Amino acid sequence: MLAVLGPEGSFCDIAAKKNFPDKRNYYSTISYALDSVRKNENNHALVPLENSFQGTVVETLDYLTFNNQLKIHSEIVTPIKHCLIGYSLDKIDTILSHPQALAQCRGWITKNLPDARLEKTLSTSEAVKKVSEMKKPNLAAIASEEASRVYGLKILVSGIQDAEDNITRFVEIGRKVHEPTGYDKTSIVFYSYENRPGLLWEILGEFAKRNINLTKIESRPSKKVLGDYLFYLDFEGHQEDEKTKDCLGMIKKKVAFLKILGSYPKKY
Amino acid sequence: MLAVLGPEGSFCDIAAKKNFPDKRNYYSTISYALDSVRKNENNHALVPLENSFQGTVVETLDYLTFNNQLKIHSEIVTPIKHCLIGYSLDKIDTILSHPQALAQCRGWITKNLPDARLEKTLSTSEAVKKVSEMKKPNLAAIASEEASRVYGLKILVSGIQDAEDNITRFVEIGRKVHEPTGYDKTSIVFYSYENRPGLLWEILGEFAKRNINLTKIESRPSKKVLGDYLFYLDFEGHQEDEKTKDCLGMIKKKVAFLKILGSYPKKY
Repeated sequence: MLAVLGPEGSFCDIAAKKNFPDKRNYYSTISYALDSVRKNENNHALVPLENSFQGTVVETLDYLTFNNQLKIHSEIVTPIKHCLIGYSLDKIDTILSHPQALAQCRGWITKNLPDARLEKTLSTSEAVKKVSEMKKPNLAAIASEEASRVYGLKILVSGIQDAEDNITRFVEIGRKVHEPTGYDKTSIVFYSYENRPGLLWEILGEFAKRNINLTKIESRPSKKVLGDYLFYLDFEGHQEDEKTKDCLGMIKKKVAFLKILGSYPKKY
Repeated sequence: MLAVLGPEGSFCDIAAKKNFPDKRNYYSTISYALDSVRKNENNHALVPLENSFQGTVVETLDYLTFNNQLKIHSEIVTPIKHCLIGYSLDKIDTILSHPQALAQCRGWITKNLPDARLEKTLSTSEAVKKVSEMKKPNLAAIASEEASRVYGLKILVSGIQDAEDNITRFVEIGRKVHEPTGYDKTSIVFYSYENRPGLLWEILGEFAKRNINLTKIESRPSKKVLGDYLFYLDFEGHQEDEKTKDCLGMIKKKVAFLKILGSYPKKY
């Protein structure tokens, strides 16, 4: 059983359906979905980690940083396609969707339905649900194709997002580390009390020296003290590779806290 | 006149009120607030840039990256204090708030009101507004002290957030660069087509060599191609310092795109 950030028809649900044969259980927040894996109610969970518009999903990273039982087991990268969903294109005066989806389709709306009133909802699926319940042809929602099917509404226009490549990176979270495949990625988080020029440069030098390619880096304020930062890194290689072990061993000596969030097949 | 991410009583509004004497105009999205400055309808805007729970506010960074007229003119760092707002603590069976605020107070709720139903709203202010309109003593909202005043409701418990230091960094955005004060910070964004091990290390080496302290680093998928990344850096110093000019000059030679988002007095 797979825990999924719901509701049914959400972008996370679509990615789960495409990639896993498991029965899906829906959760209203990322933390609830991950809790269920920690408590053995589900074998694994699929949750978003990063989005080209929204950036990093902090709730997911935090959970992995501060809970020891769970690991990233695989990653899935999917394009997000927004559709205008409703009854009739020429009658629309109000568009409902999640604020981020409305923002992502701002160019299309300004050009094609400049007078439409925008109404924010808590999720794209909720927008479709509302439109289907109210049965008014002046309403439309922005959401996935899948959501239009779940609620039995028509897709009026497909692919109305402004950027061609609005992608989301989902991660499958489980209790075990994925075995090496020869083409892997590892995610780590580390923290240092020191804040001197050059510390981060020295740490990245350990990767550069060993010809290890970084694929993501991010610093984020820690929750403890103003100006304190946690660092998140993704790099190519598996945590069981000698080169990786050697590199992380050197970094461990320089920082106060280092944790491996998972090693998994590289998908992009 | 100052553009502010509304509504009245929002955390952004509170920060604006404390730090600027200007009349405040409220906007429902960050982009609308910044648009108004670009169009000269307001002199400047105050918007969130970073939060210890939410991470970077991508909408703000993107706007600054892809629009040339606006600059970060100052930064403000404020603690965020959540309050339980309503009628009577012993009658509550439903708590309304923004999903993030509900998540930030999860520990307190689990301990003190474990059976309360949680209802998500689009903003913390909206939650207080709903509770004040419905006039039912079984409802409570989580929001700022200020919001309780705006809507004339009681603060039942103050400071119910789980982490002691839930801080938000707001930035004042204007059309001019702040003059040097001797204790400044500069924000830049850069992009490289190359993705070879060691490039970022070389770039950070330019800072380390000159003893320039980095205060933030973040990579984020660009919207163009899968696996392409934009880098955001904050570092100590003003863009008019010789040392900074020299450093950025060297970096410009290594990357495809480099932009200064602003120089401003360092507040944390």
